Amino acid sequence: MDLIQILKWRYATKKMNPAKAVPQEKVEHILEAVRLTATSSGLQPYELIVVTNPEVREKIKAIAWGQGQITDGSHLVVFAAWDNYTADRINQMFDLTNDERGFKNEGWEAYRAKLLAMYPGREAEANYQHAARQAYIGLGTALIAAGEVEVDATPMEGFDPAALDEILGLRARGLRSVLILPLGYREEDKDWLVKLKKVRRSHANFVTEVK
Amino acid sequence: MDLIQILKWRYATKKMNPAKAVPQEKVEHILEAVRLTATSSGLQPYELIVVTNPEVREKIKAIAWGQGQITDGSHLVVFAAWDNYTADRINQMFDLTNDERGFKNEGWEAYRAKLLAMYPGREAEANYQHAARQAYIGLGTALIAAGEVEVDATPMEGFDPAALDEILGLRARGLRSVLILPLGYREEDKDWLVKLKKVRRSHANFVTEVK
Repeated sequence: MDLIQILKWRYATKKMNPAKAVPQEKVEHILEAVRLTATSSGLQPYELIVVTNPEVREKIKAIAWGQGQITDGSHLVVFAAWDNYTADRINQMFDLTNDERGFKNEGWEAYRAKLLAMYPGREAEANYQHAARQAYIGLGTALIAAGEVEVDATPMEGFDPAALDEILGLRARGLRSVLILPLGYREEDKDWLVKLKKVRRSHANFVTEVK
Repeated sequence: MDLIQILKWRYATKKMNPAKAVPQEKVEHILEAVRLTATSSGLQPYELIVVTNPEVREKIKAIAWGQGQITDGSHLVVFAAWDNYTADRINQMFDLTNDERGFKNEGWEAYRAKLLAMYPGREAEANYQHAARQAYIGLGTALIAAGEVEVDATPMEGFDPAALDEILGLRARGLRSVLILPLGYREEDKDWLVKLKKVRRSHANFVTEVK
């Protein structure tokens, strides 16, 4: 499938087949795509938590409006953003970059100094909000990666983030949950959405040109 | 190229070739991918403004740290989010969905009622922030779509959003700029980043499993 076909094929699966697990190599493909995609300044200010444990997923379902895909799917990917940009976190990423490239680049070091002057002095909430936005780039990537290997995925914002942070112990790790994404396979005969037409605004109502 | 190859190929191009324009059909491919991708509740709470006009792009460059890709590229895509979720906007999307599907779905109407009870009563700023996050899903999609047709794209948050809104008259249309994305072609011999290794955190430092 090419990208347009993938985007037409995918949909927010409402009923997943609990008898059909996603093979681990397909899950890894999706995670790898998210790991490689862009983030602001390359900081990758979020992490992925992949929950397969059934009891933990039952607990998560209970704080997510009982959405069945969380337990009917085989894997639940949690996108958890940094609670703040700290000097340590910024330095770690720049140091890693220098290590991997084997040298210091002057422009890159000037950029490090700029970020260190900007982010750690801001309020944690503003930094978290910025980090959370980056996770959505990852989500856009994950949906395509899943579609490429014909895995269904249902993006969800409808859950209690504080409760999820508690279940997964995220705050102690300096993380806050942003999005959850069950992975699985559609159960067509029980999914009310699967046969309904995907509707999007027309090109004319979505794009304006300034020539 | 498959998705992983595309993600490895792309990078935040620092120098674009002003002599090489992106063909319109490739631009349309990128816009179409963004139009088709997911948004929360399918509301598509943002629009794309494609700026090719050279004078307008000069003005935008001036409020975006003078970043040369804005004028060296051939197209500048502006992601502009709804300034608020209003009942009108929500109803328009649900009405369009009913029109296109040719019938009303009971569950879908209940979902409309839920959103109408939730969004328009919230503060405009909270709604804008939520809409802005959706634009980042579109960005993740646009980067892949561009890579698929070997077009370079440089995501930018570094600009003055209020000034950009003014230049493009966005506030009068109920929109606020979130991201800009110049499209063009890398000029390899003048791009300091093109030959440097892409660095990402290791899988072990990015993914945790809860089994």
